[in-house]
Amino acid sequence: MWRPLAEAARELIDLCVMSDVDEDEVRAARADVEAAVARLRKVRRTQTLGQQHLTGGRRRPWGNPVIGLRNPIAPPLQVSTDPSGRAATEFHCGPAYEGPPGLVHGGVVSLLLDQLLGHAVGAAGRPGMTGTLTIVYRQGTPLGDLRAEAWIDREDGIKTWAKARMIGPDGVTAEAEGVFILPRAIRERSPSSPTGHIG
Amino acid sequence: MWRPLAEAARELIDLCVMSDVDEDEVRAARADVEAAVARLRKVRRTQTLGQQHLTGGRRRPWGNPVIGLRNPIAPPLQVSTDPSGRAATEFHCGPAYEGPPGLVHGGVVSLLLDQLLGHAVGAAGRPGMTGTLTIVYRQGTPLGDLRAEAWIDREDGIKTWAKARMIGPDGVTAEAEGVFILPRAIRERSPSSPTGHIG
Repeated sequence: MWRPLAEAARELIDLCVMSDVDEDEVRAARADVEAAVARLRKVRRTQTLGQQHLTGGRRRPWGNPVIGLRNPIAPPLQVSTDPSGRAATEFHCGPAYEGPPGLVHGGVVSLLLDQLLGHAVGAAGRPGMTGTLTIVYRQGTPLGDLRAEAWIDREDGIKTWAKARMIGPDGVTAEAEGVFILPRAIRERSPSSPTGHIG
Repeated sequence: MWRPLAEAARELIDLCVMSDVDEDEVRAARADVEAAVARLRKVRRTQTLGQQHLTGGRRRPWGNPVIGLRNPIAPPLQVSTDPSGRAATEFHCGPAYEGPPGLVHGGVVSLLLDQLLGHAVGAAGRPGMTGTLTIVYRQGTPLGDLRAEAWIDREDGIKTWAKARMIGPDGVTAEAEGVFILPRAIRERSPSSPTGHIG
């Protein structure tokens, strides 16, 4: 039930930057959104979705700003992974993600690649929070249909290096490297029980 | 007129991840949002806001996903700058920006710092698109009230190095360095006519 609401909210976000209706329509639309807000505000969670899922023992990243089905900020990315630590996604980046004219904001590129790097290390059983993230921008990333991929580069002790790239219609637009630190909770557990991406 | 709509949409985004109302209310809220979407969809822009502002000759970043008043994805940050190339902002990061439980998504940290670095180089009259962005994460960035600052580190020919940091209640959470390349259009113009951040 939350997913269709988030999908409608994604359309609303897109139209906030792309609609060109007159002032009366904007006011009426605002009243509609405020009516939805008034309904949803009646009961507020005491914990964030991330905190709740943590205590629930299982991670369902519904609220994640890149992949969360319940989070209208997320495009959302649907990421496929394999245990060798490869992660890949195809997605659409609309005008709400624009930085330079017609291009995806460079910081949004870093946001999406950071998330994808996390999927790669998680899939390889080497989850962790990002220690260092480096993005090299090769060319502007055009708004529209894009794909991205990530893979494990090397491992050394508690550190894992992963790489990723963003790919537009004219090839690679940005390359990323992330250094991930294995959390203590995982280090002290059996290496055969990866729990997926945590950051 | 667009700003109040975007503010209502920001509340909606927050509630998509934080509301705990029952299914009937969620369905009714979705119908309200879809009514707003139907109104706004009646006239759609042919150019993005970034493209329109470019042809208009003046940059008003209303659609920017970090500072854009019309973009519900943006917190939005209000950035103050001075001509020495310092940029600073105080803002609130709510649950929609959550990565690890209770913490801001590391990629969101990179998104916000990239934008702030851009303000610093723009304020110094050395605008450009990000060439390389490096983020070092020192500790988790807690959701809530945060501040960030950026400054020019050094310049060499067409390159400008800027640094930034994110600051939470327990001090610096992340440090950033960005290398910015001066665009040809600016290089060929009088050095006394900076045009602000373009990426």
